[in-house]
Amino acid sequence: MSYAQLMETVGQVNDLLNTQSILSWDARTMMPPGGHETRGKQLSTLSVVTRDLLVSDRLRAQLDRAESEVAALDDEAVEKRMVAQVRQAVDYHLAIPAELTRKRVELGSIGHAVWAKARAESDFSQFIPILEQTVALNRELAEVIGYAEHPYDALMFRFEPGETVASLQPLFARLREALLPLVKAIGDKKQPRFDFLERHYPVDKQHEFALAMAQKVGYDLDRGRLDTTLHPFEVSFTRNDVRITTRFNPNYMAASLFGALHEAGHGLYEQGVDPAYTRTPFATDLVGLYAVGGVSFGAHESQSRLWENHVGRSREFWQVNFPEAQRFYPEQLADVTAEEFFRAVNRCKPGFIRVEADELTYDFHVMLRTDIEAALIDGSLQVKDLPEAWNSKIKEYLGLDVPNDAQGVLQDVHWSSGQIGTFCNYTIGNVMAGQLFETAKADPVIAQGLASGDYEPLRAYMVENVHQHGRRYSRDELLVRATGRTLDPEPYIAHLTAKYSELYGL
Amino acid sequence: MSYAQLMETVGQVNDLLNTQSILSWDARTMMPPGGHETRGKQLSTLSVVTRDLLVSDRLRAQLDRAESEVAALDDEAVEKRMVAQVRQAVDYHLAIPAELTRKRVELGSIGHAVWAKARAESDFSQFIPILEQTVALNRELAEVIGYAEHPYDALMFRFEPGETVASLQPLFARLREALLPLVKAIGDKKQPRFDFLERHYPVDKQHEFALAMAQKVGYDLDRGRLDTTLHPFEVSFTRNDVRITTRFNPNYMAASLFGALHEAGHGLYEQGVDPAYTRTPFATDLVGLYAVGGVSFGAHESQSRLWENHVGRSREFWQVNFPEAQRFYPEQLADVTAEEFFRAVNRCKPGFIRVEADELTYDFHVMLRTDIEAALIDGSLQVKDLPEAWNSKIKEYLGLDVPNDAQGVLQDVHWSSGQIGTFCNYTIGNVMAGQLFETAKADPVIAQGLASGDYEPLRAYMVENVHQHGRRYSRDELLVRATGRTLDPEPYIAHLTAKYSELYGL
Repeated sequence: MSYAQLMETVGQVNDLLNTQSILSWDARTMMPPGGHETRGKQLSTLSVVTRDLLVSDRLRAQLDRAESEVAALDDEAVEKRMVAQVRQAVDYHLAIPAELTRKRVELGSIGHAVWAKARAESDFSQFIPILEQTVALNRELAEVIGYAEHPYDALMFRFEPGETVASLQPLFARLREALLPLVKAIGDKKQPRFDFLERHYPVDKQHEFALAMAQKVGYDLDRGRLDTTLHPFEVSFTRNDVRITTRFNPNYMAASLFGALHEAGHGLYEQGVDPAYTRTPFATDLVGLYAVGGVSFGAHESQSRLWENHVGRSREFWQVNFPEAQRFYPEQLADVTAEEFFRAVNRCKPGFIRVEADELTYDFHVMLRTDIEAALIDGSLQVKDLPEAWNSKIKEYLGLDVPNDAQGVLQDVHWSSGQIGTFCNYTIGNVMAGQLFETAKADPVIAQGLASGDYEPLRAYMVENVHQHGRRYSRDELLVRATGRTLDPEPYIAHLTAKYSELYGL
Repeated sequence: MSYAQLMETVGQVNDLLNTQSILSWDARTMMPPGGHETRGKQLSTLSVVTRDLLVSDRLRAQLDRAESEVAALDDEAVEKRMVAQVRQAVDYHLAIPAELTRKRVELGSIGHAVWAKARAESDFSQFIPILEQTVALNRELAEVIGYAEHPYDALMFRFEPGETVASLQPLFARLREALLPLVKAIGDKKQPRFDFLERHYPVDKQHEFALAMAQKVGYDLDRGRLDTTLHPFEVSFTRNDVRITTRFNPNYMAASLFGALHEAGHGLYEQGVDPAYTRTPFATDLVGLYAVGGVSFGAHESQSRLWENHVGRSREFWQVNFPEAQRFYPEQLADVTAEEFFRAVNRCKPGFIRVEADELTYDFHVMLRTDIEAALIDGSLQVKDLPEAWNSKIKEYLGLDVPNDAQGVLQDVHWSSGQIGTFCNYTIGNVMAGQLFETAKADPVIAQGLASGDYEPLRAYMVENVHQHGRRYSRDELLVRATGRTLDPEPYIAHLTAKYSELYGL
């Protein structure tokens, strides 16, 4: 009875969080320019109202009584897990002083404009005061949240629960050990033909083709839509309304295509959550205060990268689907073969910009940022020394000399909103995708589907092993259930090694 | 100090109401079909949270103290008016038992499907049980709200404060007396040429042209946008984000054009509210719980009808703008003159459907509904006798025999959501538009602007006399300030008499 009441109140929290997501989606896709200021106030009020409801006397009284009701159940029971997740979130938010939240919101609201100007003028010094305050406030946040070993662990908790600086070190070391030689070996090897990707592709055709490919891998338009935005993203307002966006460059078709496949991968995760979990803690990140069914940012990224890279950039995908690409773009692709197309979309070319990085060099951008954030938080790196630390790592990993701050330390938007702790999930997603894909592909039905252009068996595997569970199991619990072990980089390393050795004749 | 705190809490109420409007806009324009059910829950939670905040202990304590603070001010002072409006709304909502609201929401949530099926099958009997409950609940609502003479007065209060059955009777009688002879005189008179309006007009061209005309009368796209929907509407999320929609029939161009001008008229009202009133009671309908700057539904309709009819259907508008219409539609309008276009878009042809009615017959549809609603509420008409009452009035006013319920009593969506009391505002809007337009046009600068295609002087007049004030003054206060008298049907009657006498040679 109290459990049911608690779940209804949590459902209201979920409604309010979904509402925030709708307002954000609208602001990024539809809102006229004039709406900016009052939309900020609307989002701010919603965030206050939502947090107040989560830690309200009403919810806490329901929670106390619900805990008694479920006490006798097995720890694995759905009801007991749900209640435990609510308790964890309530404690988490009560630990954070309102004044600290206020200061972080205030900093976040001014940080973006300062960062945008600094980046436009490629002048890191303008951004230093904001970033110093960001680091100080995040250190304060880490202290109130608490941690066993490293303060950065407390900041990762919101995004990748259970991950720590200590657990990341061996993972990163192994990736560097295995992948750096590949990057260096490719070096000056002959690059594949690339010219046709930069021909003129009309934006409306790109929209149609990107959507066709997203639907081909199972993205459901009865519960979704594709829009245009500057920075592609996926966002869901329950599993029944899961929207994706991509960006369109008329002279570079691959951006919209793989952007859409990536976001469709995120979308499949949310569309696949068990309907019974709608509006429950298993479809609500009550710690991060975000209405999402995916269990961690890394787990989410595993699904986007799986469909974008393991499926969408595979030879067999284009052996099957290239004729359709040619039907959409008969002139642009008239003199191109499926093999050439496959090779072009897998070109490895170290660059400065993370969001433009190829599959092989991407993780170096991530490791660099994660290490730098941890060092800023533990005080072993000062904000003023950041560009030097950044540039020397880019040189070490990718052999490049960063020409300016805009293409270096100022390129990412994350810090401008006061956010620290959310880079490692990109690499965890890659690793987890490799691990899940290896296991899934061992099933001959799935392998046969991939070879013949039927992606339903692979999607069904992901629904069965990942999507449907929502936030019921932790990321590592999911991995153990699906693959028999926790996070393991070897399948991912084997995938990249085999793929790039063959592509570049290493 | 308490006043400032009260205003900040009211600002939060406004944020939440705007949020509801954003969710509704999205549901009607963008949402994929699957989102319907959970969107309903999100809207329901928001409505509970908003109402709870408005009658919360916190707000009421701030209100008590703010009332003391402003007690010594003049009754006309902005602060005192704002506080009084909050008090009125709090008392209004506290008077309505939660159980009654719950029953009305529940009925509203099932009514639409029943109505849609009944209308599709043109069978009023299916809708009788819903409508009987609707009438019963609205009678109950009228009792708790309170009224001096007629229970229907209490129901109109939310939409047209101050209007009563007693005040409407002489207005309606005068309109019937003046307009019925016109309708009858037109009778079998020769109709203008109409064929070219039903040619093929591509939807994308219609979108461009409708938007061009909306911008021509001053609708600001930096704070607005035009989308496609089944039932056109305008909605604002503060004056900084005011959106309109229209519908596109590829074989009838006038629907999108005048739909857009109508909604742009609503939009101009909201875009013109004093920026200082943003998030205050002067931009929030705290009684109706709707984030809107317009002071009554009738006042709002005066602005849409003014721009749609007095401006958009005037001869001088098309004398100036028809060449632009021809540039958009060179083939469709090649053999048409400006005069022919003007006459076609003013064709008077009595019909069954309110939303398709011409300028002259529209008010008869409104009077019929208002009288029927009042009779249902005071018990002088039974739900089961509604089709007969409806059909006999259509015969009396328009000389038509209603062929079935779908084209009669089932045509409007209003009752399906449990809403009663919001028809009179359409006619009040027409009357008020006539009154304001007559006064405005007496200014030679405005008249000259209309003749030369410069609509800024007229818009500036409306901003000065109507828009900027938001909800500061009542509808009648606005009218007295602008025209020296309260609602007066004579200018509207004179406008229709002159226009249709000339068009049809009466």
